Amino acid sequence: MSEDDADTRPVLYGRHASPFVRRVAVTLRLYGIEYDHAPLMPFGPDKAELAAFNPIARVPALRLADGEMLVDSAVILDHLDQVAGARSLTPAAGAARRRVLTLVAIALGANEKLVAGLYERHFRPREAWHAPWLDACDKQVRDGFGWLDGQFAGPWFTGREMTQADITVAVFWLFGRGKRPKFFAGLGCNRLQALAEKLQGTPAFQATLPEQETLASELG
Amino acid sequence: MSEDDADTRPVLYGRHASPFVRRVAVTLRLYGIEYDHAPLMPFGPDKAELAAFNPIARVPALRLADGEMLVDSAVILDHLDQVAGARSLTPAAGAARRRVLTLVAIALGANEKLVAGLYERHFRPREAWHAPWLDACDKQVRDGFGWLDGQFAGPWFTGREMTQADITVAVFWLFGRGKRPKFFAGLGCNRLQALAEKLQGTPAFQATLPEQETLASELG
Repeated sequence: MSEDDADTRPVLYGRHASPFVRRVAVTLRLYGIEYDHAPLMPFGPDKAELAAFNPIARVPALRLADGEMLVDSAVILDHLDQVAGARSLTPAAGAARRRVLTLVAIALGANEKLVAGLYERHFRPREAWHAPWLDACDKQVRDGFGWLDGQFAGPWFTGREMTQADITVAVFWLFGRGKRPKFFAGLGCNRLQALAEKLQGTPAFQATLPEQETLASELG
Repeated sequence: MSEDDADTRPVLYGRHASPFVRRVAVTLRLYGIEYDHAPLMPFGPDKAELAAFNPIARVPALRLADGEMLVDSAVILDHLDQVAGARSLTPAAGAARRRVLTLVAIALGANEKLVAGLYERHFRPREAWHAPWLDACDKQVRDGFGWLDGQFAGPWFTGREMTQADITVAVFWLFGRGKRPKFFAGLGCNRLQALAEKLQGTPAFQATLPEQETLASELG
């Protein structure tokens, strides 16, 4: 990249270790959009830097070439899909769009409870863990991914074409499997596992592998 | 409503006490879409009924007239906006769309941490409360709503026209104010308060007032 290009490329903020960041990074690559990557963490000293342009200091954020800042992976993907036009990984309208957005929503919901459980175990002293809450979170993770495992209409979720549903579910599945290998192995979601393995081998996924740190250091 | 109409109207599942349900209910009314309301709770005995059609047993869910089930308020609103066409409360494309979706995303993020704090205080014994987490949640609530309070471009967030940003932010503000009156009064968000008061007086908001129960019974 030359210096002249520096202001004309979007910048993705956040580490690939965040599945919300990774699904955006994969999508940028699949759309062929060149971007710079600022792997800030939503914790520790990076948090103040993030807060300067995102009021709730979360990742991902995407600075567009003209300086406009987008936050929230769903908002960023909505924009990228519009730019992609006919090549959008999310159908533009109708039943196909509702289907993809619903699959993504269930994956987001299951992942939210996975993260809630990870936060509890890593941010709190053992005596402040609350078993009923952890159990309820685990049930929602199990139910969400279990349902998704039964939703394939072909090689991909909606049939013969890969969509954002495949990307998001695979990213979240790989994230969960990395964080809680035994729990995820026990879910018996063979189709999700096969989807994730297939996508993990592709260039867009290989270029966005999670950074090598322990969860403790990520969250600390 | 005659019996013949029963199968041709959508059904909204969930109580208005949930701000996610309420923002959908308000939008349905503003679009002039007649619907039936099944005020199920995502807790207690209702949860199994919800789980029969929503794998992660959350509200809102919207059953369309043909039986198709949508879950997640963002997915439901995306569909309703497409049906509304030119009358959509969310701009269809471009900078105006990004702006509305970003405002909504910050409101969703702030509300998520508000709810996390409410859950902690109501679902756990006092000795399992974790002060650093509650403080971090409160900071995100404060930062999120504080930022939103500075974003008005006219009488409404984006200028002269009401959008989904106004509806969602007002619904979440009213929810928070109802649950934690002192905390919200202390935020000093006078423009959000004025927006919420203005919208609360409208027919769509008056028809979707939260049901009269305590938080404890809602969450229990």
